[in-house]
Amino acid sequence: MSAGESLARLRERKPLVHQITNYVVMNETANATLALGALPVMAHAPEEVEEMVGLAGALVLNIGTLSNHWIEAMVMAGRAANASGVPVVLDPVGAGATGYRTGAARRILDEVDVSVVRGNAGEVASLVGVAAEVRGVESVGDVGDPAGLARHAALALGVVASVTGPVDHISDGERAAAVSNGDPMLASITGTGCMSSTVTGCFLAVAPTPFDGAVQALVAFGVAGEDAARDAKGPGSFHVNLYDALAALDPATLDERARVS
Amino acid sequence: MSAGESLARLRERKPLVHQITNYVVMNETANATLALGALPVMAHAPEEVEEMVGLAGALVLNIGTLSNHWIEAMVMAGRAANASGVPVVLDPVGAGATGYRTGAARRILDEVDVSVVRGNAGEVASLVGVAAEVRGVESVGDVGDPAGLARHAALALGVVASVTGPVDHISDGERAAAVSNGDPMLASITGTGCMSSTVTGCFLAVAPTPFDGAVQALVAFGVAGEDAARDAKGPGSFHVNLYDALAALDPATLDERARVS
Amino acid sequence: MSAGESLARLRERKPLVHQITNYVVMNETANATLALGALPVMAHAPEEVEEMVGLAGALVLNIGTLSNHWIEAMVMAGRAANASGVPVVLDPVGAGATGYRTGAARRILDEVDVSVVRGNAGEVASLVGVAAEVRGVESVGDVGDPAGLARHAALALGVVASVTGPVDHISDGERAAAVSNGDPMLASITGTGCMSSTVTGCFLAVAPTPFDGAVQALVAFGVAGEDAARDAKGPGSFHVNLYDALAALDPATLDERARVS
Repeated sequence: MSAGESLARLRERKPLVHQITNYVVMNETANATLALGALPVMAHAPEEVEEMVGLAGALVLNIGTLSNHWIEAMVMAGRAANASGVPVVLDPVGAGATGYRTGAARRILDEVDVSVVRGNAGEVASLVGVAAEVRGVESVGDVGDPAGLARHAALALGVVASVTGPVDHISDGERAAAVSNGDPMLASITGTGCMSSTVTGCFLAVAPTPFDGAVQALVAFGVAGEDAARDAKGPGSFHVNLYDALAALDPATLDERARVS
Repeated sequence: MSAGESLARLRERKPLVHQITNYVVMNETANATLALGALPVMAHAPEEVEEMVGLAGALVLNIGTLSNHWIEAMVMAGRAANASGVPVVLDPVGAGATGYRTGAARRILDEVDVSVVRGNAGEVASLVGVAAEVRGVESVGDVGDPAGLARHAALALGVVASVTGPVDHISDGERAAAVSNGDPMLASITGTGCMSSTVTGCFLAVAPTPFDGAVQALVAFGVAGEDAARDAKGPGSFHVNLYDALAALDPATLDERARVS
Repeated sequence: MSAGESLARLRERKPLVHQITNYVVMNETANATLALGALPVMAHAPEEVEEMVGLAGALVLNIGTLSNHWIEAMVMAGRAANASGVPVVLDPVGAGATGYRTGAARRILDEVDVSVVRGNAGEVASLVGVAAEVRGVESVGDVGDPAGLARHAALALGVVASVTGPVDHISDGERAAAVSNGDPMLASITGTGCMSSTVTGCFLAVAPTPFDGAVQALVAFGVAGEDAARDAKGPGSFHVNLYDALAALDPATLDERARVS
C-alpha cells in the first residue's frame, strides 16, 4: 500500500489518534491531525488514559514538557495500547539535553512496546549512547552517518527508528529508506518535529507495517512542507500554509511526488 | 436586547471572562475573547480561583484536558461564581468518550449552579443518559432530534442547553431557538467548540438572560465563521481569518444577519 | 553595542533561552524566540530545570498560569541561573489581580537575583505597593507617571524595570530610556507582553548589560510590531505577520528605526 493509498484510507476511516504530548504543541498537533483527516484527542489523566486509548487507532507519546505524573500516564497508556494492539509512537523531545529526559525516554522504551521512535539525530543518538549535542530540543552537532544511526537505533531499541533532518532516515533494522521531501522552513517554527510524530501516528493507524507508515508519514508531511513554503513570507505565514497544505494533500498525486530512496 | 446590542455593550464594558480550560485551546479562546472585545484570564490554582472569579463577568469551565486537581479548581471557582452571581458556562468536552469525563461533568453540574451547558450532541446526550457515540471529542453518531435533546437536557439538568452542530439548538426547557449561522469549516480546526463556549461566556456577562446570551453568542460566532470562510484556502487560513472576523463583527448589522428560528 | 549589533550577534550565536512560562503562550513565545534567531526550550520539572538552565543563555520566568509546583520550579531554576551567571527575566503576569500572583512574584524576587522585571504598569506598580488596577492580566487604571514608576521599581526591587505600554519605560535606577516603537495592534492579541519578555531574555543573552538588553529588545519587538501592523486585516493576520516580521528584522536598519529617548 502506497502513501497515497494510506492517506485515502485515513481520510475514509478517520482514526482517533490519542496524544499525550507537550504543552507547547498540543494545538498544533491537534490541528495537523485534523488537517490530515484523522481525529485527535489529548488526554493524560491516569483515570482515563487506558479507556481512551482503547478507542484509538494509534497512541503518540511526546516528552517535550515533562513531569513525573505525565511519565506515569504515558507508561499506563502505552501498556494499555500494547494490550489492545494499538501502535505506539515515541517522540523523545530533548533526550540528550538533560538526564531526566533521556531517562524518561528510556523508561518508556523499557516498559512499553514502541512501534516507532521519531526524533532528530541528537535525540535518537542519545537513546543509544552515541555521543551527540542537543541544545534544548535542537540537534546542533554532527552525528556522522544518520542512516547508520537509524539502523543502529532500530536494532538496539527493537523499534522502527525514524531520524528526521534535512534528509529523513527510517530503518527497522533490515529495511531502510531515505526521504528527501520537506523544506528548510520546517525548521523555522516550533513543533514541526512533534507534528511529524503525530502524522506518523496517523499513518500507523492505517498502514500495513510500522516501517511503511513511518516512511509514508514523512513523505506526506514533507510534501505538505514543500507546498507550504511556496508563497510563505516568513515563519508565521509558513505555519498557516502548513495546515492548508496538509488538508490539500492529494492522495492521487502523493506517490509521484515522493522522493524516497 | 438583541445580539447587536449585546455586542456593543460587551465592547463598551470589556468584561473579564475567567476561563479554566484545556491546554489545547487556551491561546485560541483567549484570542477569541480579545477579538470579540472582552478580556480573558486563565487561572486554575486553588489559591486564586475564588479571588479571580470575583473580578469576572463570567466563568467558563472546560474539561478538555482534565486531571483531578483541575476538577477541584473548577468546583471551587464555580461555587465562588455562584456566591457572587457570576454566570457559569460548562463545556463538557469529550463527555461520553470516557467515564472519567462524563463523571467530572456530572460532578460539576451537581456541585455548581451552571447557567449554560454548551456541547456537541454526543456530549450533551451523554450527560443525560441518552445513547450517543463520542469518538475522542467528536460526536460521530446520530442522536436523532437535537432540538428535543436540547429541551430534554435543559429540563433534566436545570440549565440552558446549547447543543451545537450544523444547526445549533438552544433551550431553557420552555423557550427554544435554532441558529443556522456558521460554516462547515468551523469543524476543520480544533477548538471552535471551545471558542463557542467562551463566546457564550462573553455574552452571558452582558445579556439579560442566559438563554438570550447563549443564542446571541452562537449568532455572533456563526456569522464570524461565515466571514472567515469566505476567502479561506484551508483550515490554517480559516483559523487566522476567524480572529479577524470576530474583531470585525459589526453590531449594526449583526441582527439582520442572524438566522434564528 | 547597538540593538542592530546585538541582533546580529544573537543570530550568529543562537543562544538557548530557557522559559518556564504559562500554558497560554508557550507556543507563541517559542515561535517568537525562533523567529528572532535564538533557540527556545520549555522545561519545568524540578528534576531537570537546574541542568537545563546550565545550557542556557538566559532564563525567562512567567507567572501567567501559576500553581505551587511551578513556583517551586521557577525558584529552583532561578537560583541555578544565578549560580551560573545566567541572566533572569521575570514577567509578573497578573500581579495585582490576585494576592497569590503578587505573592508569587515577590517570592521569586526575594529568592532569585532577577536582572529584568518586564510587566505592564499595573503589574509593576503592584510589586512595589503603588495603587493600580489590574483586570485579570490587563492594566486598566492610570498609574500616573510610568517613567517615575520604572525608576521607583528599579530602585525598590534592585532590578532593571521594563514597564511596557503605549510608550515603554526602562530604568535601572540611574539610567532611563523611553521606547516609542510599537503599534496599538500589539494589544489586540494575547501573549505579546509575554513575547516581549521572551525577546528581552533573548537580548540579555548577548547584550553588554541588562539595561541595554531590555531597551534593545523593546526596540526590536516594537519595530516588528510596526511591520506586522502594516497590512494586517485584524488580530489574526497581525499575529501571523508578527512572526514574519520578527524573522525579517534587519540588523543593518534596526538602529535607524529605533525611537528611543
